[in-house]
Amino acid sequence: MKDRESQIINKFFLPLAKNRESFGLSSDAALLSNNLVVSSDMMVEGTHFKKNHDPEKLAQKLLRINLSDLAAMGSKPYGYILNLAIPTSSDNWLKKFSNGLDKDSEKFKLKLFGGDISYSSKIFLGLTIFGKKINKLHTCAYANYNSDIFVSGNLGDAAVGYNILYDLKKIKCNVTDKKYFYDKFFLPEPKIDIGIKLLGKVDFCTDISDGIYSELYKISDKSNLEAVIYLDKIPLSSNLKRILEANNFRKMFNIILGGGEDYQLLFSAKGKKSENLQGTRIYHKIGYFRRGKGVKIMKNKSESYLEKIESYSHF
Amino acid sequence: MKDRESQIINKFFLPLAKNRESFGLSSDAALLSNNLVVSSDMMVEGTHFKKNHDPEKLAQKLLRINLSDLAAMGSKPYGYILNLAIPTSSDNWLKKFSNGLDKDSEKFKLKLFGGDISYSSKIFLGLTIFGKKINKLHTCAYANYNSDIFVSGNLGDAAVGYNILYDLKKIKCNVTDKKYFYDKFFLPEPKIDIGIKLLGKVDFCTDISDGIYSELYKISDKSNLEAVIYLDKIPLSSNLKRILEANNFRKMFNIILGGGEDYQLLFSAKGKKSENLQGTRIYHKIGYFRRGKGVKIMKNKSESYLEKIESYSHF
Repeated sequence: MKDRESQIINKFFLPLAKNRESFGLSSDAALLSNNLVVSSDMMVEGTHFKKNHDPEKLAQKLLRINLSDLAAMGSKPYGYILNLAIPTSSDNWLKKFSNGLDKDSEKFKLKLFGGDISYSSKIFLGLTIFGKKINKLHTCAYANYNSDIFVSGNLGDAAVGYNILYDLKKIKCNVTDKKYFYDKFFLPEPKIDIGIKLLGKVDFCTDISDGIYSELYKISDKSNLEAVIYLDKIPLSSNLKRILEANNFRKMFNIILGGGEDYQLLFSAKGKKSENLQGTRIYHKIGYFRRGKGVKIMKNKSESYLEKIESYSHF
Repeated sequence: MKDRESQIINKFFLPLAKNRESFGLSSDAALLSNNLVVSSDMMVEGTHFKKNHDPEKLAQKLLRINLSDLAAMGSKPYGYILNLAIPTSSDNWLKKFSNGLDKDSEKFKLKLFGGDISYSSKIFLGLTIFGKKINKLHTCAYANYNSDIFVSGNLGDAAVGYNILYDLKKIKCNVTDKKYFYDKFFLPEPKIDIGIKLLGKVDFCTDISDGIYSELYKISDKSNLEAVIYLDKIPLSSNLKRILEANNFRKMFNIILGGGEDYQLLFSAKGKKSENLQGTRIYHKIGYFRRGKGVKIMKNKSESYLEKIESYSHF
């Protein structure tokens, strides 16, 4: 399994990125001269959101998905450059959008450095974020043999929100839960402090933007190992547990494993380091790496889960 | 005259950019900690180009308009982050686009650090560029009283190319000249070496992206002075001189003064410093700053030019 996005990057852009700073495009961010960490993510109308979505939440999400890349590097937020192309110059839209930036710039201690603004018939939001390297960074892109696999928190909430929002898989869900899942989709919590805490304590660390299944697949591939994960160990919110009961199990786990946008951190550690992480009770051990290839999904210790996972792709 | 773009920036984004790094959003780029210069410009389908335009040239132009901001700062090119949203994942389009990046990355000694790629029904190109500060930077945003106004080279070629390409003002022009103007529109030459040479020798230095008339208007406003320029001193290519004769003078000068995309440098200097610049014969003195407001256009030393200039705006 190699998704089209990875194919494009490897074929057309990796040859242009043969430099120390880019880490061969295999990390969540680049490290520029003088310890400046930089990453960039965009959101496009029709692909990532709809025209009528709340501009304040769009601005917050744009900052947060970029902050999540800094979290995955273990870097401290510094500031950002904004690219904004919009079909309107209405004060109302811009006020809400800049309010969203303001709120989260304050919350995450970010400065606006500059950018570009232009008319466009569709909304394009591009953001380049800067962080500072503290003393180390998570730059390793592979796991070790026999390392345990961890996540920083609940999976699936954002992907359920996305599915309800676009009415994709007809999920049965009450109004209060709907609001909860929408918020998880629009306002992911970048794990800045956790990323910094984990410096020096893990093999690799990355954020789960495209779903845990495809992230693990990439890591397994680079590590030349097989990832084994247990569905009964995956942390789920009480809201998700509730709708899991009211809906088809297979459909729900397809969303939980294949759907993205949770922005939890995914990392691995071995031996004493793994024990230390388990001792804190704030990280969730969901599996381990063994000899082999790809991703093996178990329902629990003894039962395999053989359903095919459809991963989300932007192409 | 305050264009809508400046209004939006001042009202909604300047309040978020109250930091040392941004220069109050009044420079061509920001200066991050440890002497890294950063700027960002985007190109949007339907606003800046058409879907069927050559992807190689689009990539080159995207790099060059960003490089021009580094030139205006007097900074040395370092590398870039790319945001690419496209309606196709065809190898043919991507090959041409990445070829364009490759050619100009080589020419201007730029490294690709990372970025983001996504599907979009319209093409969106965003680029954040990095430069290094040598020892100084052009960060002053205003001119001095009695300073002379200079440009680094020919004006109007790119705007004529744009007008022919979109068939806006029915310009009479032969096939060879058309090709010349298209190239000037798609492949502006960022004035990196000139920007660096001018460090410490000028009041302000900026690139002319939206037309000399609106750039001078902004500078006059910030300087609390009036810019006086002479049409007979504005450097024009022999191609433009030729079509100037075959077309309406007023129409052509509206394009030359109001149309953007030339990416020449605009700067001012006073007294001995101005004399030194004039002595080199590579810069073009086109006017000066005096007490007053706005921009005064003279046909020559004695005759005023009273036509209204329509400036290009992205809103």
